[in-house]
Amino acid sequence: MTHPFEEYRKKRKAGNEKLLKTDNLVTKRFVSLDKQAYKDGALPATTKELLALTASMVLRCNDCIDYHLETTVKLGFTREEIDEAIGIALLIGGSIVIPHARHAAESLEYLFGEQQESNN
Amino acid sequence: MTHPFEEYRKKRKAGNEKLLKTDNLVTKRFVSLDKQAYKDGALPATTKELLALTASMVLRCNDCIDYHLETTVKLGFTREEIDEAIGIALLIGGSIVIPHARHAAESLEYLFGEQQESNN
Amino acid sequence: MTHPFEEYRKKRKAGNEKLLKTDNLVTKRFVSLDKQAYKDGALPATTKELLALTASMVLRCNDCIDYHLETTVKLGFTREEIDEAIGIALLIGGSIVIPHARHAAESLEYLFGEQQESNN
Amino acid sequence: MTHPFEEYRKKRKAGNEKLLKTDNLVTKRFVSLDKQAYKDGALPATTKELLALTASMVLRCNDCIDYHLETTVKLGFTREEIDEAIGIALLIGGSIVIPHARHAAESLEYLFGEQQESNN
Amino acid sequence: MTHPFEEYRKKRKAGNEKLLKTDNLVTKRFVSLDKQAYKDGALPATTKELLALTASMVLRCNDCIDYHLETTVKLGFTREEIDEAIGIALLIGGSIVIPHARHAAESLEYLFGEQQESNN
Amino acid sequence: MTHPFEEYRKKRKAGNEKLLKTDNLVTKRFVSLDKQAYKDGALPATTKELLALTASMVLRCNDCIDYHLETTVKLGFTREEIDEAIGIALLIGGSIVIPHARHAAESLEYLFGEQQESNN
Repeated sequence: MTHPFEEYRKKRKAGNEKLLKTDNLVTKRFVSLDKQAYKDGALPATTKELLALTASMVLRCNDCIDYHLETTVKLGFTREEIDEAIGIALLIGGSIVIPHARHAAESLEYLFGEQQESNN
Repeated sequence: MTHPFEEYRKKRKAGNEKLLKTDNLVTKRFVSLDKQAYKDGALPATTKELLALTASMVLRCNDCIDYHLETTVKLGFTREEIDEAIGIALLIGGSIVIPHARHAAESLEYLFGEQQESNN
Repeated sequence: MTHPFEEYRKKRKAGNEKLLKTDNLVTKRFVSLDKQAYKDGALPATTKELLALTASMVLRCNDCIDYHLETTVKLGFTREEIDEAIGIALLIGGSIVIPHARHAAESLEYLFGEQQESNN
Repeated sequence: MTHPFEEYRKKRKAGNEKLLKTDNLVTKRFVSLDKQAYKDGALPATTKELLALTASMVLRCNDCIDYHLETTVKLGFTREEIDEAIGIALLIGGSIVIPHARHAAESLEYLFGEQQESNN
Repeated sequence: MTHPFEEYRKKRKAGNEKLLKTDNLVTKRFVSLDKQAYKDGALPATTKELLALTASMVLRCNDCIDYHLETTVKLGFTREEIDEAIGIALLIGGSIVIPHARHAAESLEYLFGEQQESNN
Repeated sequence: MTHPFEEYRKKRKAGNEKLLKTDNLVTKRFVSLDKQAYKDGALPATTKELLALTASMVLRCNDCIDYHLETTVKLGFTREEIDEAIGIALLIGGSIVIPHARHAAESLEYLFGEQQESNN
């Protein structure tokens, strides 16, 4: 059976292609701005990803959480560091965020497992 | 395999029947007011549907988005017009709305395909 | 086929275990505070559950709604009482809450069915 | 100097008059439904007010909080009971609710002071 | 005494100047995209302003509401048309939007008064 | 005339005192947990403050924004770094965040002015 995180990846890829087939300029430029925003600047790219992860948690968007978990793991954050960002998000956003923290815990288990495999 | 949009239609229908079996007056009157609000008035019914679509996007409710996409397509809006409403919603609601814009792109592909078939 | 409510129960249980494997103190203490908050105090535990159900509805979190529906049914609230809380939530939160009221109606049918069976 | 709560009362009254001068039927019927929803039913009116107070807290609307604080105090809830509803709202809605809990504490001091005066 | 709407205009102007003194590229490009999005396209600029007004109402942002009320009045929408958009927003966003509908009613009275004066 | 930031400080202090006069254990323990969460851990305290600032922006809470701006300035972040966090928040949260970015720009001007004075 495919892991839910793989289904998410497939769905995001297919959805992005459909979204970007549009001729709508606002959408295209918004998505392009979104890609450029997370580069190194006054703040390092790593910090920006962590900001986005926390914002995604308090705004309670699982797809956004999965996207930024994938990136923060790839950028080298440890489980302890990511768990601290999740703790802060829980505190700021309240118990309504708990189901999203559960979702993040599922995704993190998969992502760190994947990382370990590729390191072997 | 059933398209996700068909599953949504089936689930909405079944859910509405269960919701309206209640004797609760507030819920009944709220749902009834909701039905009457989208008729032609000072603003045409078409504009009101577009307002509701944009509001559903910025409030990030996929079921609400699907409902108003179905209606706006049925009322004759073109893909370009709906894509502009989605662009505005993205700008107002931010990148947290992107997963919902992806969802809308999937639904729109299905709805315009369905429309084309019924025109043949 | 498993009822969606059973799938929710299984997923919540598995997710909670994964969430609590963390060493993060903020998350652990937050979850612990969450458990203690719903005990009898100046307000009875029953009222607190109803407050949490309504808050979960207006914040539009299906997993939170299911959790508090399960508890309110277990605590002895009637369908009419729970439907009134849902009506209030619909009014406060608006038509964007309708899909969650449909979800609640599905869950309530299951939970009261389950209760009746166990009473026989 | 006028207490902020008195300014709120004056502003709400003036605003309601202006809002209801509209000929818009949806707004008129919505406001009318809102008035009828908080009567005794399967749940007592008192419980419904407490539900609305908690929902107003987690949705972070000071004017709504003040309205339902005024009503819950008038209906005879004690400070301890209202503080428990606020505690639940804080837990569900997170630290982002703290400024609204501070606001509620200011309003409650005024409202219970007013009640005591009128009892003398 | 200055009308609150004039104070809002002054504060917005001063705030925008301070915001745009930043060298931050994301903010600058975001604000620039925001300016271009509301031009005539597949949808007329007028419709886009109405979409933004409704979105601002359901997202409960008074400054955003005032901005789009000013523009919709300037673009020639009648009070009846704007009131219908507000009614839709109330229905979608729920009673938590009522304080913002009161705010809008105050602003509209001022804006249409201003318009009438300038027509004389 | 007192600067709005000084009024905010005075109001927050007075409000906190009133909030903590309560005997409610959930509120007391929540506020205490909130104080402990921002200490150095797997992530440095500085990063946590930046996470909280971004979360406060996307959740659109001016009092929360002011609190975390005060702390981030005190902790030594530069204007450029804070402006990047604000840019990310604008992108994630959308144009509805603009009024809060204006508010932040006003507060930052005051806070960096204050810092410069105390350095002289």
